[in-house]
Amino acid sequence: MKKISVAILGATGTVGQKFISLLEHHPWFEIRELVASERSAGQKYGEVCHWREPRALSSALASLVIKPPTASLESVLLFSGLDSSVAGEIEARYAHDGHVVISNSSNHRLDTQVPLVIPEINANHLRMVQTQPYRGAIITNPNCSTMFLSMTLAPLYKNFGIKHVIVTTMQAISGAGYPGVASLDILGNIIPYIAGEEQKIETEPLKILGTWDGAQVIPASFSISAQCNRVPVVDGHCESISIAFDQQVSVSQVKNALRSYQGEIADMALPSAPSAPIIVLDQVDRPQARLDVNRAEGMSTIVGRIRSCPVLDIKMVILGHNTIRGAAGAALLNAELCYSQGILDEYRL
Amino acid sequence: MKKISVAILGATGTVGQKFISLLEHHPWFEIRELVASERSAGQKYGEVCHWREPRALSSALASLVIKPPTASLESVLLFSGLDSSVAGEIEARYAHDGHVVISNSSNHRLDTQVPLVIPEINANHLRMVQTQPYRGAIITNPNCSTMFLSMTLAPLYKNFGIKHVIVTTMQAISGAGYPGVASLDILGNIIPYIAGEEQKIETEPLKILGTWDGAQVIPASFSISAQCNRVPVVDGHCESISIAFDQQVSVSQVKNALRSYQGEIADMALPSAPSAPIIVLDQVDRPQARLDVNRAEGMSTIVGRIRSCPVLDIKMVILGHNTIRGAAGAALLNAELCYSQGILDEYRL
Amino acid sequence: MKKISVAILGATGTVGQKFISLLEHHPWFEIRELVASERSAGQKYGEVCHWREPRALSSALASLVIKPPTASLESVLLFSGLDSSVAGEIEARYAHDGHVVISNSSNHRLDTQVPLVIPEINANHLRMVQTQPYRGAIITNPNCSTMFLSMTLAPLYKNFGIKHVIVTTMQAISGAGYPGVASLDILGNIIPYIAGEEQKIETEPLKILGTWDGAQVIPASFSISAQCNRVPVVDGHCESISIAFDQQVSVSQVKNALRSYQGEIADMALPSAPSAPIIVLDQVDRPQARLDVNRAEGMSTIVGRIRSCPVLDIKMVILGHNTIRGAAGAALLNAELCYSQGILDEYRL
Amino acid sequence: MKKISVAILGATGTVGQKFISLLEHHPWFEIRELVASERSAGQKYGEVCHWREPRALSSALASLVIKPPTASLESVLLFSGLDSSVAGEIEARYAHDGHVVISNSSNHRLDTQVPLVIPEINANHLRMVQTQPYRGAIITNPNCSTMFLSMTLAPLYKNFGIKHVIVTTMQAISGAGYPGVASLDILGNIIPYIAGEEQKIETEPLKILGTWDGAQVIPASFSISAQCNRVPVVDGHCESISIAFDQQVSVSQVKNALRSYQGEIADMALPSAPSAPIIVLDQVDRPQARLDVNRAEGMSTIVGRIRSCPVLDIKMVILGHNTIRGAAGAALLNAELCYSQGILDEYRL
Repeated sequence: MKKISVAILGATGTVGQKFISLLEHHPWFEIRELVASERSAGQKYGEVCHWREPRALSSALASLVIKPPTASLESVLLFSGLDSSVAGEIEARYAHDGHVVISNSSNHRLDTQVPLVIPEINANHLRMVQTQPYRGAIITNPNCSTMFLSMTLAPLYKNFGIKHVIVTTMQAISGAGYPGVASLDILGNIIPYIAGEEQKIETEPLKILGTWDGAQVIPASFSISAQCNRVPVVDGHCESISIAFDQQVSVSQVKNALRSYQGEIADMALPSAPSAPIIVLDQVDRPQARLDVNRAEGMSTIVGRIRSCPVLDIKMVILGHNTIRGAAGAALLNAELCYSQGILDEYRL
Repeated sequence: MKKISVAILGATGTVGQKFISLLEHHPWFEIRELVASERSAGQKYGEVCHWREPRALSSALASLVIKPPTASLESVLLFSGLDSSVAGEIEARYAHDGHVVISNSSNHRLDTQVPLVIPEINANHLRMVQTQPYRGAIITNPNCSTMFLSMTLAPLYKNFGIKHVIVTTMQAISGAGYPGVASLDILGNIIPYIAGEEQKIETEPLKILGTWDGAQVIPASFSISAQCNRVPVVDGHCESISIAFDQQVSVSQVKNALRSYQGEIADMALPSAPSAPIIVLDQVDRPQARLDVNRAEGMSTIVGRIRSCPVLDIKMVILGHNTIRGAAGAALLNAELCYSQGILDEYRL
Repeated sequence: MKKISVAILGATGTVGQKFISLLEHHPWFEIRELVASERSAGQKYGEVCHWREPRALSSALASLVIKPPTASLESVLLFSGLDSSVAGEIEARYAHDGHVVISNSSNHRLDTQVPLVIPEINANHLRMVQTQPYRGAIITNPNCSTMFLSMTLAPLYKNFGIKHVIVTTMQAISGAGYPGVASLDILGNIIPYIAGEEQKIETEPLKILGTWDGAQVIPASFSISAQCNRVPVVDGHCESISIAFDQQVSVSQVKNALRSYQGEIADMALPSAPSAPIIVLDQVDRPQARLDVNRAEGMSTIVGRIRSCPVLDIKMVILGHNTIRGAAGAALLNAELCYSQGILDEYRL
Repeated sequence: MKKISVAILGATGTVGQKFISLLEHHPWFEIRELVASERSAGQKYGEVCHWREPRALSSALASLVIKPPTASLESVLLFSGLDSSVAGEIEARYAHDGHVVISNSSNHRLDTQVPLVIPEINANHLRMVQTQPYRGAIITNPNCSTMFLSMTLAPLYKNFGIKHVIVTTMQAISGAGYPGVASLDILGNIIPYIAGEEQKIETEPLKILGTWDGAQVIPASFSISAQCNRVPVVDGHCESISIAFDQQVSVSQVKNALRSYQGEIADMALPSAPSAPIIVLDQVDRPQARLDVNRAEGMSTIVGRIRSCPVLDIKMVILGHNTIRGAAGAALLNAELCYSQGILDEYRL
């Protein structure tokens, strides 16, 4: 099989580097183009990029010359790790020109015609692209904390109905990119605020768990309240959540629903799909970021401490790898879903 | 004025050391006796104790010979920082012998005849000591996280009534004593479990905010749900809380109620009382443990990010110094209250 | 006594803030002018500055309007915490205009006519200002790590002569200013490189310990080798050092020389001078940054683990507060020395 | 090929767990017996062990019943991760009974008849076992910091001769085992002392680089001075070292000698041998523990910042994985060397 050519937008950033790392030996996709800011354009990637991934950068990619964000690209499929300060316009332009932009940026997530997709949950939302005003398309994945919350809520919402969710997040520094959080701010400290984050968590899951009726997404109708904290952890967002259900639900029912969840892509053999979307731990003091974040290559949501809540119904702790399943890995799985569903075939430059 | 002689139970532990540090230049109390385990008894304090307080240990205290927990003590007033594995019995025995035990341990907090006191909130509960079966008395202060939560809830409960509270704590390592948390467990990590902590937080505030009717405490009747996390912070417990009130309440009403709260001891001039029990911050990213924990000598509760909650009514972030106002400082303030109210005069060995 | 008006150059930076914090209740000096970049000029200090000092900013200073670095200043005495990218020119211009610039910046430290002063060691170098080409003067203090190393070497050099010094530093993140070191770089990590630092440490002590012959400083003639590391510590530079002496020296001779060191300012009653320039600890595992850095208000050098070295002669561990005695506090002490010596009286605008 | 049965002594400890993790899919060895303290004996490993390795414990090993340290063992080959408080006697007893004990403990390292082996450097020292008073044998690997220092010195000693070495270590918390270092001691701090460590580093390399003359090891004759610090890093010991050579040596000669070093096992195809014993990095700010410690599966020594030293000749920074190549991985490589050399064939129970 001939691999599909792809380009990375925002290639020198944290998410861009993770895309490159995850795509290095990908069976379907091959990176042929790297796009970064005008300042980096024209230079070799290996000379400009402050590479921070554990896996070494291949010499082929290191010698690739960076293109500016105004360049015409030959790849139909683009992965965008662009900063939200510039992503909105650049992504729209490439979609207008016929590209399929798989975006991790927040800019277009809530656009009424843009699918906000977690393959296990709402693969069918992909059909929204047909309504887009572009020759190409934009497909987005959720905010990092939203990803793990939505994945946990999906089987519970489907099985029991949900009334309310209260969540407090403890988010890793890698979620803020590089240089991101100043060490003087976070060493031995907690910052109880992440700009814009609470609003995303309170909104995005309702679209993801909503229903596509062919014309629009009717959002799920429960309410979410989020409090977000930055913590001195390198990788791994933890969330303490409490849920009120539409019906009486036991702890073991919740455990079973989470453990047995397969999601809509169970039979698709997508290369980056985890064998289980959700892993439930039974130890009383797990999940923990440093010990559990790399389970299933960072692609599963890890859940533990499922127990009764004296105020709502059930409470628990969830964990996920914020730069893998919470960012680049999520976008990659979306691209695999598109390819698997034949959606990529519909676009040509 | 002649100072009142006091003894410290559990003098070599973390809380014991903090007692010694806070009492060093106290205007009313003077440490004359130090009690620690049989293993340390008979040795000079300075030779046995692995002193970890920032303030240097005085040579007078360093040369004091440690007494065993079976010793007869000459001081009426005892401060107990004993570990809960032994505190229950030792404290009861000293109370039986006529001592007034001001305890930071959890063992007797929920005993029906033992006052669980935060002077600003329920100074009148002190009268419970009259019903105790001891010649002396036991007086307790709450668990560290409970302290800051109760202080925040007190003016809100009084002004608006409370239906529910949901709290997620992020607790400093000093709360676990020494050696306490292993560095391999917490460096760059979050541990989503602290044994026994959630139950204390869900129970103790209801006794503190309850009503003493002369025979018993009728607990406050709202429900609390807690999730507790250990975080890599040295001092300072942070808590993300959401509250449902009995009536509609605005953000500014909550701010005003917290800012104007004086508590029952406003006019008593207790030496360790903070000028304001609650300090409300307006910056969007505060309070923060490392920057704010030492405000008001660690005796105030710091509150910030007061805003609407989409699920309950109001949410906010609170912070307090866990080993000062959350432990030794709380006990010290209780002792000052006892002295100020003439309660110490009622006891003699 | 009427206080002397002073201005702070670089007032919004880390060192500038520390100057403001240390000068708040100073008996001799009073801040009347604040200078920062053009971008901040014209705005109130409290509105522009991201204040990070533990001590609250006074409302008087918060409402002071920032002046640009091109402004004419009314204060003769200026404290400079300017970044080295701009300090060279701005400081020279103010000195040219008649101001006495007490600078913490590295730019002019090695200028042949600029004194590099640690009051305890080389107060007499101040006379170099008479040779400066300015109407005013520039007086500098050393690099943070150099400060503690020079202080430790001074009594040893004087008493025993020194042949070689090898030093490995472990430097706190506050030494890099704000935002400074990215948390992703330093959390759970060591960075074995600090740009320019090793050269400063290998050069500056030789000037400080050199001899002013009325025309020039003849540098001390031993050699120093430095390796510098950034470590995840907030405040406090630790240094492992080994020294070869000109003669045979015992551990106890070294201890005595360090403990008895008074320095040239012992009788001057400078407000910020520590009672002992050097504190020697006997515990086997001290000094430690978090436990010892605030001794003597952060103005002393703390030394421990003095023992024989199998390669050179004696090795030891030293510690100092990098933003106090290693920066703003050092400059302040230099200013106090100038005032005390009547040097400030010689300058007028 | 039938795998060789092995037993792990001290199976529940940090090093014991690392042995198990490294041996899980080993091509030559298979764990059949686990030995731990009397307290754990008789229980299933999975129920007793607080497993902390990232790789999940296999169910086969989890259900293995732990044997006491007094048990007769069926495996000839034993890996010992015993604590030094008990290792000395237990290892000697098993060696007396005919076992080949591959030990990571410090107890027997300096015994005159016990080889202290780093396969790349002194594989021929293995012949010392013939002089041992046991039916079996004891073979040791060095202290963690010694490992990386010796590996770096080996090619330099051979090529240029060495006069002196001065080293300052910055050692990770995992080197102290579990629970090991208290978080209150190390969070945001440096501890400038590790009991016994400096003496090991100053002694062990001389035996490793010494010459076996058939009767005894004549130690290398240079001197080493070490200063050891514990730092808040999870895995990875960093060392700043300076070396004086017997002859004039340039930086590029040192780089070449390190880069081209193959060691004595280059052609043996030992399964755990790294492809290069030493990796030299050219970036100015590397090696760094968190970024580089897992190169070559944690089995190589990483060297960087090679430059001239103004006091000795050349200085540099070295890094290694303290629990892999610095402990369990070193022992495993020793066992592979024994097997490869046919030494295991000489022993039978």
